[in-house]
Amino acid sequence: MLKGIPPILSPQLLKVLCEMGHSDRLVISDGNFPAEEMGKDAIVIRCDGHGVPEILDAILQLFPLDQYEEKPVNLMEVVPGDPVETPIWDTYKEIVAKYEKRGADCVGNIERFAFYDEARTAYAIIATSEKALYANIMLQKGVVVD
Amino acid sequence: MLKGIPPILSPQLLKVLCEMGHSDRLVISDGNFPAEEMGKDAIVIRCDGHGVPEILDAILQLFPLDQYEEKPVNLMEVVPGDPVETPIWDTYKEIVAKYEKRGADCVGNIERFAFYDEARTAYAIIATSEKALYANIMLQKGVVVD
Amino acid sequence: MLKGIPPILSPQLLKVLCEMGHSDRLVISDGNFPAEEMGKDAIVIRCDGHGVPEILDAILQLFPLDQYEEKPVNLMEVVPGDPVETPIWDTYKEIVAKYEKRGADCVGNIERFAFYDEARTAYAIIATSEKALYANIMLQKGVVVD
Amino acid sequence: MLKGIPPILSPQLLKVLCEMGHSDRLVISDGNFPAEEMGKDAIVIRCDGHGVPEILDAILQLFPLDQYEEKPVNLMEVVPGDPVETPIWDTYKEIVAKYEKRGADCVGNIERFAFYDEARTAYAIIATSEKALYANIMLQKGVVVD
Amino acid sequence: MLKGIPPILSPQLLKVLCEMGHSDRLVISDGNFPAEEMGKDAIVIRCDGHGVPEILDAILQLFPLDQYEEKPVNLMEVVPGDPVETPIWDTYKEIVAKYEKRGADCVGNIERFAFYDEARTAYAIIATSEKALYANIMLQKGVVVD
Amino acid sequence: MLKGIPPILSPQLLKVLCEMGHSDRLVISDGNFPAEEMGKDAIVIRCDGHGVPEILDAILQLFPLDQYEEKPVNLMEVVPGDPVETPIWDTYKEIVAKYEKRGADCVGNIERFAFYDEARTAYAIIATSEKALYANIMLQKGVVVD
Amino acid sequence: MLKGIPPILSPQLLKVLCEMGHSDRLVISDGNFPAEEMGKDAIVIRCDGHGVPEILDAILQLFPLDQYEEKPVNLMEVVPGDPVETPIWDTYKEIVAKYEKRGADCVGNIERFAFYDEARTAYAIIATSEKALYANIMLQKGVVVD
Amino acid sequence: MLKGIPPILSPQLLKVLCEMGHSDRLVISDGNFPAEEMGKDAIVIRCDGHGVPEILDAILQLFPLDQYEEKPVNLMEVVPGDPVETPIWDTYKEIVAKYEKRGADCVGNIERFAFYDEARTAYAIIATSEKALYANIMLQKGVVVD
Amino acid sequence: MLKGIPPILSPQLLKVLCEMGHSDRLVISDGNFPAEEMGKDAIVIRCDGHGVPEILDAILQLFPLDQYEEKPVNLMEVVPGDPVETPIWDTYKEIVAKYEKRGADCVGNIERFAFYDEARTAYAIIATSEKALYANIMLQKGVVVD
Amino acid sequence: MLKGIPPILSPQLLKVLCEMGHSDRLVISDGNFPAEEMGKDAIVIRCDGHGVPEILDAILQLFPLDQYEEKPVNLMEVVPGDPVETPIWDTYKEIVAKYEKRGADCVGNIERFAFYDEARTAYAIIATSEKALYANIMLQKGVVVD
Repeated sequence: MLKGIPPILSPQLLKVLCEMGHSDRLVISDGNFPAEEMGKDAIVIRCDGHGVPEILDAILQLFPLDQYEEKPVNLMEVVPGDPVETPIWDTYKEIVAKYEKRGADCVGNIERFAFYDEARTAYAIIATSEKALYANIMLQKGVVVD
Repeated sequence: MLKGIPPILSPQLLKVLCEMGHSDRLVISDGNFPAEEMGKDAIVIRCDGHGVPEILDAILQLFPLDQYEEKPVNLMEVVPGDPVETPIWDTYKEIVAKYEKRGADCVGNIERFAFYDEARTAYAIIATSEKALYANIMLQKGVVVD
Repeated sequence: MLKGIPPILSPQLLKVLCEMGHSDRLVISDGNFPAEEMGKDAIVIRCDGHGVPEILDAILQLFPLDQYEEKPVNLMEVVPGDPVETPIWDTYKEIVAKYEKRGADCVGNIERFAFYDEARTAYAIIATSEKALYANIMLQKGVVVD
Repeated sequence: MLKGIPPILSPQLLKVLCEMGHSDRLVISDGNFPAEEMGKDAIVIRCDGHGVPEILDAILQLFPLDQYEEKPVNLMEVVPGDPVETPIWDTYKEIVAKYEKRGADCVGNIERFAFYDEARTAYAIIATSEKALYANIMLQKGVVVD
Repeated sequence: MLKGIPPILSPQLLKVLCEMGHSDRLVISDGNFPAEEMGKDAIVIRCDGHGVPEILDAILQLFPLDQYEEKPVNLMEVVPGDPVETPIWDTYKEIVAKYEKRGADCVGNIERFAFYDEARTAYAIIATSEKALYANIMLQKGVVVD
Repeated sequence: MLKGIPPILSPQLLKVLCEMGHSDRLVISDGNFPAEEMGKDAIVIRCDGHGVPEILDAILQLFPLDQYEEKPVNLMEVVPGDPVETPIWDTYKEIVAKYEKRGADCVGNIERFAFYDEARTAYAIIATSEKALYANIMLQKGVVVD
Repeated sequence: MLKGIPPILSPQLLKVLCEMGHSDRLVISDGNFPAEEMGKDAIVIRCDGHGVPEILDAILQLFPLDQYEEKPVNLMEVVPGDPVETPIWDTYKEIVAKYEKRGADCVGNIERFAFYDEARTAYAIIATSEKALYANIMLQKGVVVD
Repeated sequence: MLKGIPPILSPQLLKVLCEMGHSDRLVISDGNFPAEEMGKDAIVIRCDGHGVPEILDAILQLFPLDQYEEKPVNLMEVVPGDPVETPIWDTYKEIVAKYEKRGADCVGNIERFAFYDEARTAYAIIATSEKALYANIMLQKGVVVD
Repeated sequence: MLKGIPPILSPQLLKVLCEMGHSDRLVISDGNFPAEEMGKDAIVIRCDGHGVPEILDAILQLFPLDQYEEKPVNLMEVVPGDPVETPIWDTYKEIVAKYEKRGADCVGNIERFAFYDEARTAYAIIATSEKALYANIMLQKGVVVD
Repeated sequence: MLKGIPPILSPQLLKVLCEMGHSDRLVISDGNFPAEEMGKDAIVIRCDGHGVPEILDAILQLFPLDQYEEKPVNLMEVVPGDPVETPIWDTYKEIVAKYEKRGADCVGNIERFAFYDEARTAYAIIATSEKALYANIMLQKGVVVD
């Protein structure tokens, strides 16, 4: 543990967030996402027992979203015809708005299989135990400016 | 995730709990315990962001305490003169009592430096972010009898 | 060994089952299947000396079948013209029916070479010593919902 | 699998049995033995789901017992005062007698903690799921003479 | 060494033969074959100082040839115009006939460069010091039936 | 790079600082210290081209000094008879005072060879290019309390 | 540290510079460059806390620029329409001129995405903490002639 | 060192020469050749401080040139228009003639970029410090016949 | 294979013989010697299928015996009371005499357990399939003088 | 290769020299020294084909001798009674004198077995092919002062 760093960020996760650069992508996946399979060419970090919101909140304290990208945050689009509700998206947007002045405007959607393709080339995938549906979220790192 | 297995138990932790045998010891350490240093000859499993009680409760669903040992659960004794209160011990005893009929009777104490020595030879150390004081706990595995 | 976990599931197999996610595939192969060759990009787990049924039964106690897939269980189709009988398939269907309400309806067939192709991209292959013919079986993991 | 080799012997186990030499020791441990901990300096081979007798029988088809040692087979002595019965020892002796003309005469006992000490320096430890009590057995390899 | 196993089969070779499955291919190469280069994606096992016949004979004691394949044994065809004699082929056919009732009928030829291509995808390559010309031989594993 | 984290802390150094626990020790060594030799059992982190003060200042923003130890910061004592001046110690004390209310009072000295012995058992050694003499410094980590 | 070698060159960087040959390329990247992602097939060397100019100056003391290439030094072209100023380029050109008689004439530009493509096939990438914009620079090694 | 083996052949180089087979290629590169980059899929052996001729002479004492190939030795062709002289080629031809009765007749040339392509698929690359220009040489191994 | 090097010497064995220095010891063990156990801190080289004499003969073509040691060759002494004959020792002495002018005079004996202790600190152990009794032999390397 | 660095220093040797610190020791050993055995806990760097003098000369261009040690250079003492001449020592002293103002005064001797003991704890051992007798030399690194 370190002063001022949320303890939910493990030493390894801290290292990975720090070594990522401008435009690298990070997936925070829900508990049923095939994170190990999708992440065969990525770094997979296990956060078993946690939901996505607390991880997202902790990460955004340190991790800038891409200022040059219109939608640096992306959710997996609901498959057409699926009547599922996605209330967790509102939670995500509130968290994003705490750290990014564009707020929910910088949150986009990606069609399900396109999301999988992007996930396969992400720099890292965080595997949580989030139980909400359509709860995967992808972040694109921005530039750190002092 | 698997049916009926608490999701807080990561795949690696599940493997380690399963491969432990009779009399092997496991430490669930608090957030300031030097787990990586103490665990140089052990397996260190990170559970950052979690407290000890939720980990302990999940483990005891699967992990038998040593039936041949009078005190298969041990806490780190308060250093003489230290006025600290350890309310988390009551929580631990309640959790143990849910899974073990001997209840709090099977929970003992080990003097601080003896606890460190035991930790150095444990099979595994779980590093949590528990903030309570004197919150380290050591479990000795029993026999699985069907 | 752990309380309530079938001992036939090795620590490593338990880890792999747990880390698999929605839509990942697992092959339980018979004793003559070229598991190591097919599994060069997968995780190969040896269960020498066991037949497929006892492994299958143990796995389905923990592993949900894909609820979104019509045929989450697949067998290798008999090559046209081959007069072989496959009585073990009935055993498999009975085991599946113990854990999945759709029962044998969720068990499909895949043509032999297509089966090989799928096996090459599976997440894991379990190598048994099953002696029955056409005894390989592939499972697709579903979602864990509490 | 190979012609004439019991399929319960995994490829890795076959390799280990073959590379052992005169006087090397092998432990076949029961399901609660701390095999991974005891075997930190040894080769640990998992045979989850199997009992000791079927492994022992398969091994003795290939593995000569030490002809120069009076007791090349050793069991863990019952702790004085423990009223436990050990019927599995008779099974072991029958199996040994199938492959070794000295029969049960070459089977000895080692006091519990001495057994642990010997196990820590064995060449390999096989971890089974044997549920019988006092079921660990240690074999010392002999000379192969054609 | 083990009882009844030819000592020329090293522990590692025994393991590899055992873990191969139906249809996997094995090359026993002569002393000038570029085994390490061809075997970059395979397992290369060195048998320096041995000729091919003694290795072949030992392997066929344990290794079934593919019963479903017309030519499970293949030799490298003599390049057209090359007046070389290949008396070692007769030795190979005699050895095969000792273990396989189809005898020399199950021995085929493959054109030189096609042989190389097949070798590159074999499961394992055994590097001998055989000095005879055109002495490479490829075996396809069959099914073990008790 | 991350928001609010000094960029001089590399991803690996951040990870190491975070995984250290209460009472673990860290050496920031000068450019001539035999860091690789002393750190054979430790983690060695290279910070070539930097002096000690800028590293020390960055570390203390995140790293608590041991509140239970009278002298959690230690310098290598000047060898008796050596007329060397150590002005860099004043710089160190000023930096410590920025982050620790006890200020210079918590900075002690260790005799040269005792310092080496302590360094050999430190958790990590940071190798800088500091050119000042007697410029090695050892920090003992405290407890993170929110 | 070594006599006459700038201490900012770490032992590993010195090794890499030395083992590079004629026409190998090296990227010195700024603090926001995705060095780890771009360098998955390269050697990534961290120089956290340093700017590019001091690294460039130290490298050029030892590293010859390609005499056969018109532009052995390349900068990432400003994206058309971007009003950014790049004063650091002047610094780079002055440093190059200290070591290369062609001076700024041997410094070229590469369009942004072409620069990324080249970076992905570079021999090594040095990750600095440089904060200036458009501050990445690529060097092509020349021939060492005594 | 061994009796009768030139000491310039390191243990590793001896192993590599020995494990090469008929038609495998070996590059002996000059001091500016990008050996590590070209040899990413090969074995790179460093012979820093040596010129090519002494290495070539030592190798040919043990290493047969391909008797079936018209030009088993190849040099990198001078780029058209380059007035460079290549006196070292005469040295190479004299050395080849000492060990190969075809002498200089078996030495060919390969166009520069074709040479690079061949080098990328060689079995091994030896990196020397040879300073002569156009001094790289490629050898194709022949058959050892007693 | 290489010109003039006995093909029974594998590439790895050649490397090991070459990297050994003055006074390093090498054991050539018979088929029942516990070579892997004894060689846990050494390099173990498998020569399955070979007897000791052909290996010994090949090694002595390249490997000088220690000229400064009275008995650079050692055999394992017959245990007092054992009526075994050791005709293979005569073979060994004849082979030694081919390469060493001192002949059988430089061959000594070591008591059995002292031999084991020496073997545990040897540089390398060669595991053969030699069936003769008391057939282990230890060689001490001498100085190569041209 | 790099500008101004002797090409006989390989990239790895350069790295090792650079990462050594004050008081670390380096052995440059002759061709018969058991460098791999002595260096089991050290870094062994092969310089086959070279003599000691050219390596020593190149190293001392970069490597400061310990200014605080009376004899930072040590030779292996001639065994009493051995009439051998050691003319190479004069060469060594001349080389040392080129780089160190104390000249031959800083060159000492260590008794043979004490030398071996020191070598076992050196940071690195360089294995040359030097043929002179008593030609091993040990250097202790000093402080780099600009």
